[in-house]
Amino acid sequence: MSHTSPIISVDAMGADQGPSIAVEGIEHILKRRHDSAARFLVHGDEAQLSPLIEKLSAKARDRIAVQHTDTEVRMTDKPSEAVRRSRGSSMWNALAAVKAGDADVVVSAGNTGALMAISKVVLRMKKGVHRPAISASWPTPRGHTVVLDVGANVECGPSQLVEFAIMGEAFHRAVHGSTNPTVGLLNVGQEELKGNDTVRAAARLIREAALDLNYHGFVEGDDISLGLTDVVVTDGFSGNIALKTAEGAVKLVGHWMREAFTSSITAKIGAAFLQMGGLDHLRAKLDPRSINGGVLLGLNGMVVKSHGGTDGEGFATALGLGIDMAGSHFLTEIEANLDRLKAAEEQSSESNS
Amino acid sequence: MSHTSPIISVDAMGADQGPSIAVEGIEHILKRRHDSAARFLVHGDEAQLSPLIEKLSAKARDRIAVQHTDTEVRMTDKPSEAVRRSRGSSMWNALAAVKAGDADVVVSAGNTGALMAISKVVLRMKKGVHRPAISASWPTPRGHTVVLDVGANVECGPSQLVEFAIMGEAFHRAVHGSTNPTVGLLNVGQEELKGNDTVRAAARLIREAALDLNYHGFVEGDDISLGLTDVVVTDGFSGNIALKTAEGAVKLVGHWMREAFTSSITAKIGAAFLQMGGLDHLRAKLDPRSINGGVLLGLNGMVVKSHGGTDGEGFATALGLGIDMAGSHFLTEIEANLDRLKAAEEQSSESNS
Repeated sequence: MSHTSPIISVDAMGADQGPSIAVEGIEHILKRRHDSAARFLVHGDEAQLSPLIEKLSAKARDRIAVQHTDTEVRMTDKPSEAVRRSRGSSMWNALAAVKAGDADVVVSAGNTGALMAISKVVLRMKKGVHRPAISASWPTPRGHTVVLDVGANVECGPSQLVEFAIMGEAFHRAVHGSTNPTVGLLNVGQEELKGNDTVRAAARLIREAALDLNYHGFVEGDDISLGLTDVVVTDGFSGNIALKTAEGAVKLVGHWMREAFTSSITAKIGAAFLQMGGLDHLRAKLDPRSINGGVLLGLNGMVVKSHGGTDGEGFATALGLGIDMAGSHFLTEIEANLDRLKAAEEQSSESNS
Repeated sequence: MSHTSPIISVDAMGADQGPSIAVEGIEHILKRRHDSAARFLVHGDEAQLSPLIEKLSAKARDRIAVQHTDTEVRMTDKPSEAVRRSRGSSMWNALAAVKAGDADVVVSAGNTGALMAISKVVLRMKKGVHRPAISASWPTPRGHTVVLDVGANVECGPSQLVEFAIMGEAFHRAVHGSTNPTVGLLNVGQEELKGNDTVRAAARLIREAALDLNYHGFVEGDDISLGLTDVVVTDGFSGNIALKTAEGAVKLVGHWMREAFTSSITAKIGAAFLQMGGLDHLRAKLDPRSINGGVLLGLNGMVVKSHGGTDGEGFATALGLGIDMAGSHFLTEIEANLDRLKAAEEQSSESNS
């Protein structure tokens, strides 16, 4: 259900540093998107939240409604435990609000495994999806590349990778606005014979099924940042490693850059000029908080996962992604694509019988 | 066999851009390492090589001996074909020279699969090694992290990962000079329950076998660039994706940096000051040519694999790695470590029987 102004359901208790992160995030995103009419349904402990909210601007305070709960999912809870024990927690209630139609999208910085598991119970999976995936939107010189799965499924069969392709393609169209996104399968080489059995079987499935996907073929790790394809499909093991390794490499370059900018008086003068001349823009691009927010795909509802260790600025980025999704045709695009997958599967089983 | 001055066996025909890359690489490395007494046994087509070598400095010319062959392994050859058909090629002869004791280490920019396969035939694998691995030395703020496997084995069982740990640890000691390198297993989280069956089984094996490894536990993608451990062990699928994804991310940052440095007059002035004040050092660090060179581990002989698409500067880096290895105790360190692995396995099978 879509509301005239987007309503974001916020799990305020998920961030490592506590509820101030979510509350500050709301203030930040309303400054960044000053035209947005977004409202926030904030789930958590009112005793902790109220004093934080009181400090906000009048505009932010007006947009927030708190739904109190004093239970929360902990970072150490196993997914199965979380499902059994966390009914009524801030995470559960944030998801239930979307299920009930009281909000358009959930944003949580909580325990990823628990968020996946509770999402499946509360929102249920879309018909035809084996397991949800988590996608990350990766900045490139050409826009954004959507990479999935980045950690939900450590072991994936070929048909799961095909589902990821279908869901990632719909996501790119709905959220990044492309009309005919290209899809690549992440591999260790571009030639057809490269890789393991799973990735080769997935490539065959995508090619043979009449999915009407703009399938490019295999892509390699460096093609992600290059933006060679709009969507990059991989299993959650390699995808998580790729995402975190890239984050680490970017951090390392930032470290070297700071070293270079302070290595001599001349360099410091140069850095000061750069500071006046557009360095902030670069710094913002290198800031991991500027790309915070994974999206859970395959559910009857929209869920954004923020990094647990983020701050208010980073949480604001995840909220911004939620606002974008609330205004998009994401759910109908995914459904249309899954129908295509189902039709292709039926056609294939008929032609085989 | 180690020579008083290191002798590098060069496959001159492997680079995508032809034999000029290897010849220029020799000139470059002799400039960078002006104290080195290294000599080069260059395998390839004399008709192409002679005019290139004539253009070099007298010093470089004096250090080169050409061993002529007019056959070469092509980038499109499958490994099995290469083994059958490429006896007498520049790659084969370069490896055979090390086998015969005429050189200390091979450097090739040729077809990776063929290099692996021919190496196994010509040099043979060390006892106790299932398959060779390729390691990459990753620069970090703390030195170098050795990552393996970065592409030789797309599917690995737990005991192979243990071999990689043993070989990577020996490599770090021999080439990067650490005394007690720490070893991590690449995974999607640091907790014991994370990841797939293979990586969890490998962790158990490393812990239970009395390998005397300085085993840290699981590490994540961003820990590689951080230098959290000296050695990071993974299968060739994830390792290749991690390496290339990091390369892509660093290239993307370089692209943004150039944009930022030329975005305004003020920024250009800043960049000019930086240029005087140490930017070259940063640029060199971000240059993929400065970290060119994977090492094949597990063979009775030392083999360095350069990127096929590199230029003379990049090939020089691979030659430099070869020179470092020629002067190291790499082969004896690996052997000692494999003996430890064998002893641990025997002890474990005795205690099980």
